[in-house]
Amino acid sequence: GVLGSGDFARSLAVRLACSGFKVVVGSRNPKRKASLFPAAAEVTFQAEAVKKADVIFVAIFREHYSTLCDLANVLVGKILVDVSNNTEINHHKESNAEYLASLFPACTVVKAFNVVSAWTLQSGARDGNKQVLICSNNQEAKRTVAEIAQVMGFTPVDMGCMSSACEIENIPLRLLPAWKIPIFLALGLFLCFFTYNLIRQVVHPYIREQKNKLYKIPIEVVNTTLPCVSYVMLSLVYLPGVLAACSQLYYGTKYRRFPDWLDQWLQHRKQIGLLSFFCAALHAVYSLCLPMRRSHRYLLIETAVKQAVEKKMTIWVEEEVWRMEIYISVGIIALGLLSLLAITSLPSIANSLNWREFSFIQ
Amino acid sequence: GVLGSGDFARSLAVRLACSGFKVVVGSRNPKRKASLFPAAAEVTFQAEAVKKADVIFVAIFREHYSTLCDLANVLVGKILVDVSNNTEINHHKESNAEYLASLFPACTVVKAFNVVSAWTLQSGARDGNKQVLICSNNQEAKRTVAEIAQVMGFTPVDMGCMSSACEIENIPLRLLPAWKIPIFLALGLFLCFFTYNLIRQVVHPYIREQKNKLYKIPIEVVNTTLPCVSYVMLSLVYLPGVLAACSQLYYGTKYRRFPDWLDQWLQHRKQIGLLSFFCAALHAVYSLCLPMRRSHRYLLIETAVKQAVEKKMTIWVEEEVWRMEIYISVGIIALGLLSLLAITSLPSIANSLNWREFSFIQ
Amino acid sequence: GVLGSGDFARSLAVRLACSGFKVVVGSRNPKRKASLFPAAAEVTFQAEAVKKADVIFVAIFREHYSTLCDLANVLVGKILVDVSNNTEINHHKESNAEYLASLFPACTVVKAFNVVSAWTLQSGARDGNKQVLICSNNQEAKRTVAEIAQVMGFTPVDMGCMSSACEIENIPLRLLPAWKIPIFLALGLFLCFFTYNLIRQVVHPYIREQKNKLYKIPIEVVNTTLPCVSYVMLSLVYLPGVLAACSQLYYGTKYRRFPDWLDQWLQHRKQIGLLSFFCAALHAVYSLCLPMRRSHRYLLIETAVKQAVEKKMTIWVEEEVWRMEIYISVGIIALGLLSLLAITSLPSIANSLNWREFSFIQ
Repeated sequence: GVLGSGDFARSLAVRLACSGFKVVVGSRNPKRKASLFPAAAEVTFQAEAVKKADVIFVAIFREHYSTLCDLANVLVGKILVDVSNNTEINHHKESNAEYLASLFPACTVVKAFNVVSAWTLQSGARDGNKQVLICSNNQEAKRTVAEIAQVMGFTPVDMGCMSSACEIENIPLRLLPAWKIPIFLALGLFLCFFTYNLIRQVVHPYIREQKNKLYKIPIEVVNTTLPCVSYVMLSLVYLPGVLAACSQLYYGTKYRRFPDWLDQWLQHRKQIGLLSFFCAALHAVYSLCLPMRRSHRYLLIETAVKQAVEKKMTIWVEEEVWRMEIYISVGIIALGLLSLLAITSLPSIANSLNWREFSFIQ
Repeated sequence: GVLGSGDFARSLAVRLACSGFKVVVGSRNPKRKASLFPAAAEVTFQAEAVKKADVIFVAIFREHYSTLCDLANVLVGKILVDVSNNTEINHHKESNAEYLASLFPACTVVKAFNVVSAWTLQSGARDGNKQVLICSNNQEAKRTVAEIAQVMGFTPVDMGCMSSACEIENIPLRLLPAWKIPIFLALGLFLCFFTYNLIRQVVHPYIREQKNKLYKIPIEVVNTTLPCVSYVMLSLVYLPGVLAACSQLYYGTKYRRFPDWLDQWLQHRKQIGLLSFFCAALHAVYSLCLPMRRSHRYLLIETAVKQAVEKKMTIWVEEEVWRMEIYISVGIIALGLLSLLAITSLPSIANSLNWREFSFIQ
Repeated sequence: GVLGSGDFARSLAVRLACSGFKVVVGSRNPKRKASLFPAAAEVTFQAEAVKKADVIFVAIFREHYSTLCDLANVLVGKILVDVSNNTEINHHKESNAEYLASLFPACTVVKAFNVVSAWTLQSGARDGNKQVLICSNNQEAKRTVAEIAQVMGFTPVDMGCMSSACEIENIPLRLLPAWKIPIFLALGLFLCFFTYNLIRQVVHPYIREQKNKLYKIPIEVVNTTLPCVSYVMLSLVYLPGVLAACSQLYYGTKYRRFPDWLDQWLQHRKQIGLLSFFCAALHAVYSLCLPMRRSHRYLLIETAVKQAVEKKMTIWVEEEVWRMEIYISVGIIALGLLSLLAITSLPSIANSLNWREFSFIQ
């Protein structure tokens, strides 16, 4: 049974009917809505639909849950599947599923399918994320819904009891939570180093020698800033592991929980590492652009003209040659190794490595 | 039961036996073929094999289906699994599975396993695509086959009733259908812009000033063409979304289907975007190659020599310096952002994002 | 039931309890250990725990298996799940699971869950590799454990009978086995070509003309070596396919096994190809770094000065210009095509291609 006639209700009915289930849709205005649903689904009044079905998907907004109270008698003993989502994280004190359960204490409520979009439901489960997170206080009901999800082509994931409903409802609303701290960290570091380099390369020459070097801001200052950020971020990837090991040695046990800040830090290592790689890659591209710049060209020609006028035929500073060759060579090798690390952090590759291989590559 | 003794029949028998099923293979010449099958599988005459089995995999070519008509009596009530593929898309008017069903109306036909290769079957389901698309008019039979697939380590995907058989049979034959239009579009745009740039950079100088600039064709003309293609493609990614929104506003409903051309266009956005990124990346590499080119070197030295002879010590056009620095700087940032878009379109990463995160990145 | 009180035993108990199973933990010191386990799990003496449970996870080290012999009476008829791992590949003559089975002939032993880490167990199966490889001589027991794994959110993969236990136990210990040969091959080729190029570009000019060209070692010699390695590796990707086809034609059958060396070679093609791409990409980056090098700058200025002093205004060798333009142009196109190959070898993309698409791209 499906209660509701929105996009999600329709997609759900289509998918259930395609997977061979008998579907009955409950609507307050079945005649007007019948045309929206597939022919295989029976559209009728809510009370009738509820009577005919054992498992009922409640595809209506939380705000309208109370309108179902008229059906309380016929709902007794049924499994209600809450598929709703909120518009804001932790909008209400209790999760939608818990609220539904409190309204209908005689029903078994299961939270499921909210992480799946109407689009995924309708287009079948061949593409996209196929996980359906399920939670309920009733194991039997949970397994029933898990089996329905499996027949529909999804992968049910058991998330435990009803208290997880809040967590499950927040999943479609989260916005890259693991990236927030690392990105602000990178921006903060960038600003600090950028200011320092701006003062060193532009402001200082201007004050001391009245030289106008403003043209250096868009590329050169940025390009000396990026590797600094990259280095610091890379060290921040490996530091918390060392701190964690020290803490374990100090307390003599590995069963003591790390302090919260260290725990958070340990969990953000992957993101910090990827941002470090991103900065390093940008640094490489900025450096390679050197010869396309007019400023480089003018300075080169100026040197050549000066030497020609002074008839100095050759200048070859062996030390400078070697220094630059080694700089560049080491830089390329470092970038190559970092890119291996970045590739192994792709989910599909990380999943194919065992722990020993992963730590070897690290 | 398995009917047939080709590569696929053997791999199927091996895999079924490994997964703990009792396998009986039906062959017209069991003695000669027995050596091809694993010891755990019993190889016998077709009629005998059919009698012993409840589920029969028909691993023979469509052309030979009619040879099974002698077995019609013993086949009554059995589940026949059609695993066949065609050599051409829509080769026959009806799908192989429907043809088999019409030959044996007393059997239940299920289409399955055709998207799995003999190689994947034999090597186990640990690597490669593990989806097995299943369709049938009989729900019970479909579930039986789905359970077999699951025990064998595959992920059964329910594709509805027998009319989907044609679609399932075409899947192993399709050749990047989603890429065809975007690639021809990119090639067309490339040709147009290439011709325009060729005329502007090579033909026109030759006609007006008799200058031979043919050397510009392989790199410079291509390199001015690529970003034009990239820009137009990128705008073509975002344009249909705007058109769709306009159409919804105009008709005042989101339940009206878009016209076919817009629907097609909306579905190809990802591919158009990736080709746009590919052109942008090639443009970056072409541009970075500038200093390796002899022509660049010769022109640079020529300028230096001219200035030296005329004793002009320094030329520094502030405006040109700034223009180039900003061009390059903005170009790198654009490429960095585009590469983020490209990375999030990798299936394994796209699957780990929810809708809100995906649209935020877009 | 879970026997043991280590990290793995705890994570297992947590996950089982979360998935709705009744968990009883057997420990030799239940009072001291009870605090380590979740409240939902009952911690008691080993003998009692075994009596209450039908499926018993043996989460203790192989060395301590014999301590369970006291429980032999109560263990009769139970399913023992061996979750253990070794510290070295093929450390013992027989696998842990087979050893356990030999100690308790009256029990049914199933090997499972050893490829899953304690961390994955505890954090739920939402991330990371979700496959649980299972093998046992008893089909019934295997299915019971597979169902438990499924309810816990993992994907059970049937690996056949107990003789696979050794293979399964080696999986968490393997260290990129498919990469070993290709990497040594690449290193060997690199050394050979490096030596040759070193002699040609550094040693020979020094002996013949006493010119010190040592500065060429870190970049130029490496950069002429990389494309040689890349070419040879690329040809080694396509050669074994040709050899295999020849062998099939020669013997007139495709059912004859290839010789072992050819089989090995065929299986390493993907890795060889990716290393070839890696060398090609490094070659591109090394080449693009040319203008950042002091040596390049000095030589450029030297040429300009020489020409200026001799008042030669322009030098333009049309042939050299064309050669370089075409070299670079073809190089970029080759790298672009190779990068397409590399992208399609990502697991998540390879899985979405059918065989026809894959061979078309190749």
